[in-house]
Parts: sequence; C-alpha cells; structure tokens
Amino acid sequence: MAKEITPRSEDYSQWYLDIVRKARLADNSPVRGCMVIRPHGFAIWEKMRDALDAMFKETGHVNAYFPLFIPKSFLSKEAAHVEGFAKECAVVTHYRLKNDPDGNGVIVDPEAKLEEELIVRPTSETIIWNTYRDWIQSYRDLPLLINQWANVVRWEMRTRPFLRTAEFLWQEGHTAHASKDEAMEETLKILDIYARFAEEYMAMPVIKGIKTPNERFAGADETFCIEALMQDGKALQAGTSHFLGQNFARAFDVLFLNKDNQQEHVWATSWGVSTRLVGGLIMTHSDDDGLVLPPKLAPIQVVIVPIPKPVPEILEAAGKIAAQLRAKGISVKVDDDDQNRPGFKFAEYEMIGVPVRLGLGQRDLDAGQVEVARRDTKEKSSVSLDTVADYVAQLLEDIQANLFNRAKAYRDEHITPANTWAEFEEALEKKGGFVAAHWDGTTETELEIKERSKATIRCIPVGNPEETGACILTGKPSTQRVLFAKAY
Amino acid sequence: MAKEITPRSEDYSQWYLDIVRKARLADNSPVRGCMVIRPHGFAIWEKMRDALDAMFKETGHVNAYFPLFIPKSFLSKEAAHVEGFAKECAVVTHYRLKNDPDGNGVIVDPEAKLEEELIVRPTSETIIWNTYRDWIQSYRDLPLLINQWANVVRWEMRTRPFLRTAEFLWQEGHTAHASKDEAMEETLKILDIYARFAEEYMAMPVIKGIKTPNERFAGADETFCIEALMQDGKALQAGTSHFLGQNFARAFDVLFLNKDNQQEHVWATSWGVSTRLVGGLIMTHSDDDGLVLPPKLAPIQVVIVPIPKPVPEILEAAGKIAAQLRAKGISVKVDDDDQNRPGFKFAEYEMIGVPVRLGLGQRDLDAGQVEVARRDTKEKSSVSLDTVADYVAQLLEDIQANLFNRAKAYRDEHITPANTWAEFEEALEKKGGFVAAHWDGTTETELEIKERSKATIRCIPVGNPEETGACILTGKPSTQRVLFAKAY
Repeated sequence: MAKEITPRSEDYSQWYLDIVRKARLADNSPVRGCMVIRPHGFAIWEKMRDALDAMFKETGHVNAYFPLFIPKSFLSKEAAHVEGFAKECAVVTHYRLKNDPDGNGVIVDPEAKLEEELIVRPTSETIIWNTYRDWIQSYRDLPLLINQWANVVRWEMRTRPFLRTAEFLWQEGHTAHASKDEAMEETLKILDIYARFAEEYMAMPVIKGIKTPNERFAGADETFCIEALMQDGKALQAGTSHFLGQNFARAFDVLFLNKDNQQEHVWATSWGVSTRLVGGLIMTHSDDDGLVLPPKLAPIQVVIVPIPKPVPEILEAAGKIAAQLRAKGISVKVDDDDQNRPGFKFAEYEMIGVPVRLGLGQRDLDAGQVEVARRDTKEKSSVSLDTVADYVAQLLEDIQANLFNRAKAYRDEHITPANTWAEFEEALEKKGGFVAAHWDGTTETELEIKERSKATIRCIPVGNPEETGACILTGKPSTQRVLFAKAY
Repeated sequence: MAKEITPRSEDYSQWYLDIVRKARLADNSPVRGCMVIRPHGFAIWEKMRDALDAMFKETGHVNAYFPLFIPKSFLSKEAAHVEGFAKECAVVTHYRLKNDPDGNGVIVDPEAKLEEELIVRPTSETIIWNTYRDWIQSYRDLPLLINQWANVVRWEMRTRPFLRTAEFLWQEGHTAHASKDEAMEETLKILDIYARFAEEYMAMPVIKGIKTPNERFAGADETFCIEALMQDGKALQAGTSHFLGQNFARAFDVLFLNKDNQQEHVWATSWGVSTRLVGGLIMTHSDDDGLVLPPKLAPIQVVIVPIPKPVPEILEAAGKIAAQLRAKGISVKVDDDDQNRPGFKFAEYEMIGVPVRLGLGQRDLDAGQVEVARRDTKEKSSVSLDTVADYVAQLLEDIQANLFNRAKAYRDEHITPANTWAEFEEALEKKGGFVAAHWDGTTETELEIKERSKATIRCIPVGNPEETGACILTGKPSTQRVLFAKAY
C-alpha cells in the first residue's frame, strides 16, 4: 500500500492528500468544499474533543448549544465582524421545495421565501451575544463560561481536507466577564489550555503569540494564537483565543449592574479549535509509509498480528496479552483476519498509524517472547511474554515523548533570525520555517512583505524579548523581532 | 420559584413550557423554531449521548461525519423519501453577501447564486448512500455500522422546545449489510438498545412496536419504534429504527459482490433518537415544583446545602461528605453561596431536578447526622454522618427504580381495551393514554379514525398476540389489536 503514497520529497501537498485518503481519514463529498470524515478520522477527532472537553470542564466551563442559523441583520451589528465574516457564507433564502410541474424532481418553491435571509453560522458571536442579553443582568450572573461543539460553514474557495473546508467541526467558547482583567485572564487561560493540549496530546510543539492588528479576529481587540510548524516548513495556526473587549456587548446591548450599582457593558472572550487540528497532526508526525499518531490520540494503540495465521493457540496467547494491556487502559486490536498475509497487514497498520504492533508466531510462543515494532522509528525488539505488558505501556509513553521531541527539534531548528531582506528571503526560500525579523509595526509594511514574499506575520511571541533593530523592509526602527512564515 | 410554574392540572402545555424555562433547559431564539439549549439542558443531553454512544460502540458501531448540505437532486433519487422530506426544509441558494450599496448593512449577492441549491440535511440517507457507493465493493466490506451525531433541520410550522424544533440534535445510524436477515437483525438490535436506554437510563417505560405503512419512514420497508406515554395521556414516539430494504442501494447504485460472486444491492437500516428525548424525560417524571430527573441522567446527583449559611465548620463537614460520595462516582455540588437562604435554595434545586438534597446545619453536625431529602417523593430522613455515603448511593438507585416503576404503573393503567367506537372515544376522551382496539388494516380506515378522533395508530406492539375481532370503525374483521393514542 505504502508505494501508493507520493513521497514527501516529491510533492508534499500530494503526500498529504494521499495520507488522508489511504489512511481512510476523510473523503471528498459531492458538496463542494465539504468532506466526509471517515470513522478512523472521526475517532481521532473524538479523542481530541474528549481531552479538550475535559480540560474546559476542569476550568469551570459548561457546554450549551445555539442555533445553526443567524439572521442576516445580526452580522451587521458589529462593524468589524461583518467585514470579516459576512462575505463568503451559505445563505438560506427559502424554506420549502415543491414538485417540479415539469416532472423533473423538485424545485425551490418561490412562495416560500424567507422575509429575512438566514446565514449558516460562520462563527456564533452574534447569535450568542444576542442571547446573553437575556441571561445577564448583574455581576452575580458573571462570569458566564460557555462552550459549544458545533459545525460551522465558511464558503472557502480553495479547500483541502481538514486544513480548510467549507464546513468544519469545532468548539467555540464564548465567555462573559465583569471586568477587563478577568476577560484577559480567561483569554490567556484558554491559550494555555490550547498549548498544553497541542503539546501533551498531539505531541505538536507550538508557539504562543499575539496576532498583529491585521491578522486579528474580526471584532476582537486582541487575538492570541498557537502556531505550529509543519514538516514542509509552513506554519499552521492551530488555535485562537480572542479578547473581544466590550465590542459585542455594545453591539448587542449587553449591560450588567456592577458591584458599584452602575450599568456597564460586559467584557467578552471567544476561542476555538477545529478539525483543522487533525490536519496539523498528520503534517507534524507522518511519513512516507502513512500516518504516525501520538499514542494519546490513537484510536487503536496496539495491534497484535498472529503470524502467519490466526490459529487458535496463537489467538489465545494474543488474547492474554490483549487482556493485560486493556487492564492498563490501553486500546488493543487482535487481528483475527485469516485472509490477508502478515506483510500486507503490517503495511496496513503502518498506514493507519497504529503506534505499536506486536507480531506473534509459533516460534515466538515457543521461545516465550513476542516481536514488538514501534511505528515512529520502525525499530523492532523481542520482548519476553512475561514483561510485554509493562514494556508496551512504557513504550507508548516513550513514543509520545519521542514524537514531541522530534517535532520540537525540527521546529527549533527552523526558527531563523534574519537581519536583512536578503537574509529574510533566503531563510524563507532555502530553509523554510519561522523567520524572526524586525518589522516597523505598520500594517502597510506587513502587507508589502506578504505581497513580496508570501510570508505573513504568524505572531509576536508571548513574552517576546525587547530588542532594538531595523525593519527588514523599510529599515525603520523596531523594538522586537516577530515571527514570519509561509502558512496554511 | 415554584409558584411561577403553571400546575399541570390547569394547563399541561403551559406547565411544560414553564419547566423548560424555569429549570433553565432551553430558551427561544430569534430564529423561528430554533431553540437555544442552555447548559443545564445540554448537560442532560450529553449524559444521554454518552450512554447511547457507549451502547452503540459496544455493539460494533463507529462514528463518522457527513456533510450538512445535500444537493437538491439527491433528495429526488428515492421516490418515497422525496415525498416525505423534500418539502419543509432550509434551502441554501447563495454563497455570498455583499455590502448594500444603499448602506443598509449587507444583502445577498445576486451573482453568488449556486448552480444547484443545497438542502440543509433533514436526515442523511441520501448523502450517506451516495458515499457508501465508493466504500462498498464486496461482501468483505460489509457490514458497515456507522453512526453520526449531528444537527438536522426540518422546517416545522408549529414548534415546541425539545419536542419539535426546526433544528434539532440527534444521532442517525446508517448501516449496510450483505443480507436481508442481517439488516433486519440490526434494525431490531437497535430497537432493543433504544428500549433499554429509555427504561434503564431515562426510567421511561416504552412499548416496542411496528409502525403502520402510513406512519412509516419515507423510504423504509418497515419502521420500528419505541412509544412512551406522557403524564397528560398523550403518546410520544421516542425513537425509530428503520429496515430500509434495498431502496437506498437501488436509488444510489450501491452494489456488492456477494459470496457467490454475484452483484447484489446492499441491504440497509437507519435509526435515530434526538433531543426530543429531553422533552420526553421532562414529561414523564416532572411535577408542579419543577424538573424531576432520574439519577443516571442528572448532571448534579446530590447537592449539599449548609444551613443556614456556609460557615467554615459546616463547609468542612460538607466537603467530607462530598469526597465520600465522589469516591463512589456520584456527582456532588456543595452550595457555598452566602447570598440566598436555604428555603430559596431548596426550591431552586427542586426546580432543576437534583435527585437528592442534603441539608447540613450545626445542630445536625452536633447530633452526628444530616437531613436527606429525595426529589421524587419529597420524603426526608435524618441519616447518620457515618453511613450517609452508602445511604445516598442506595437512595439514588431507589429513586431511579421508583421513577421507572411509577411511570410504568401509570403507563400500564393507561392501556385500555376498546371494542366499539363508543368505548374507543370514551377511553380517549375520559382517560387518555393508549387504546388497544381492532383495526381493519387499511390506511383509509386509519386516516378516517385519525380525522374523527385525533388519535393515530402509535404501533403494532412487537410480539402482539393474535386475536380475532372487528374493526372499531368499519366492523371489518381484524386479527389483532393495535395501539391508538393522541400523540406529540
């Protein structure tokens, strides 16, 4: 199977599409830009969702659900927001079909036109803040810490499975606070959760940073992000946490009585990560033989393959190992298929990214051992049956750590300082990754750099050191380096 | 607070709306027919979802995700399906808005008209079977046991929170099989899961049955259902499991090579339950003081209220009890609010349906005991602090059982045999509930009975005994009684 994957060195973009298809993560659908998330891809997303959901709940957040549709007029209420989101979106104009009088199936019933069009949510700030107006009267109603798991639609022109699709799944948190400080604290708390999730679960190192005004969420006073680096040297924005100030409270008249008995506009945050993370996961760890998954997010962590066939004695021994592993909370599949050969199965499990494979034959059994192969390095060892459960438990932790360390080493090697335009271009073209360079702080320069180099300012890292320098484009004075990269 | 709930005896329908609002389960939204599911309502749905999801997975099902949008032409491919679903639905006709040249916000961009309109899924058989065509080639690809948790939209004219909303959340299972028998077995397996979930988790007794051809799902060869009885004597269809035969495989050309090397159309099932279950849960158990929840679905199972105030000594004792309960897997809230009085809090926790309330004051502490109040019967007991954890654990089981037994006794009392039209009408009008009556088996008679009485045939119970009789309307011969009721 692996030979059907285009090597990364040949065409990274095609390699990605091959992995998505051959690891059965997603399929194209007949609806432009919308994908079908296949069971294996969805199982990975479920693991991400459950881990994040637990982290949100531990920090006091609760889930709710708001309508899919947003009245068109709502989008216009926040001036910046409408510019960012009201353009490429799915518009519902009618609520009924009828039989075509010409007998060709069904047609839209022109009499069933909505008075006001409905927009399929591209994000839910407007409908949620319209609701919060009814829920918030006093400081006692605050903070309101609500998250929603939902589908959203943005009519993207160029799509790519997981990374950019017209419909995608995500979580969107929308919190309301009695003070600016508390809202800012929440924004940063979530940024930390995102970074911790990316690093501890996805084994994907990220840089926490602040977006430039030009890259800010439409309607935010400040956008924070986590930025990851893919194997092709392009950056991926993996999650964003927005400090919304009082913008949406003003747009939707959400006032509260503060402790001083004064009416005040409520302070807000919003934050989200999406199925895009699955794309980031693929591009951080996988290789030319298929998907590589960190054990914490692998739907099957260990597979046991009887060699050469699942005869009863070997299946029985495999069952015992499986039981020992399951007792440790490890998910195990015993492959009892008797149609395909071990070599085919090995390639298949490499393709779908099972972190650990156990090969068990009669000779192994006689010798009281089993062959353990790890997906990340392809190394194999013979391990005693007596100790294999402990060995595998430890190995899963080692793989998780190894994937993170490997990705971090790659990322760290790909942060290049550049002091001149020539150095900047060379780093971008020859090496890829992040380029740390001085910028004069204006949107004009930012856009000009993007125009010339295709690189954007990914972020100003949180805790960035101050350093005097000159903008690589204009030579104007600058107080800090920012991170540029080409990005997904 | 309770005084703000309309008593059931006065206006059951208003009582229901009052519970939904006062127990903070859902709110109306500015989008017609769409509700906002509030955190407390959503937490109940999450518990339902998690329990059902585990039951589906235990029986070999996996989750996936298919697009929100369905090309209009897909709906026309299955003749019966289009009649049932293509009418009242949300139609996306455009993919862009633009600034109104007159300066009034945004308008639909007439140049961004879709070539083919997209329908927001009312159910996903068509898009899924269009995908299965690519996934299924041989009997080795079968069975395909896939479930999806999703939102769907049906443009209902009269809506009611949870029971009937334009957008609702549900799960829809779509399975593909190599034989008719296997598909029928799956249909019934899911019916059993639904019934078990309703009875064991929701404490809501249900009757498993078969729908008449007239009440069948559009595109099914046979529809099975679980039917529950609400406190006002009206029935609620709580879940359906459809045997789809080869209808969708024919409509979407889904063929497989069977073991005899012959091309054959695939056999199908589909099945779903939705947020409607939350409505059923409310109407099965709740009372004039608020929501009553079975412990297995209660987001907070036990609340501990310090009396009269959360002073440190009482909070410390409450914390100890909470820790003991949590060690048993029980979810506990210690109310440390110092603003409201115990009486207010008691009413509040009754309103939101917390199954067990512990009241803990200084006098209780001195006596080494705590007051335990159960929500279902309102009974209170003093229990020794030494044994309270075991007592509460057992009490939660007792409440779960009591709610089921109480609902089952009510339901069983409300299945009335009727042998004449007069008896039928009297049972419906005076008593309500299910009426078991003979019917001549024709859709014509079924519709005439509905027209005259507003009652529909809820189902023909699975395993219904054969019995010779005469149709209550036409007097024609009948071989079995069927269950009629007015229904939600």
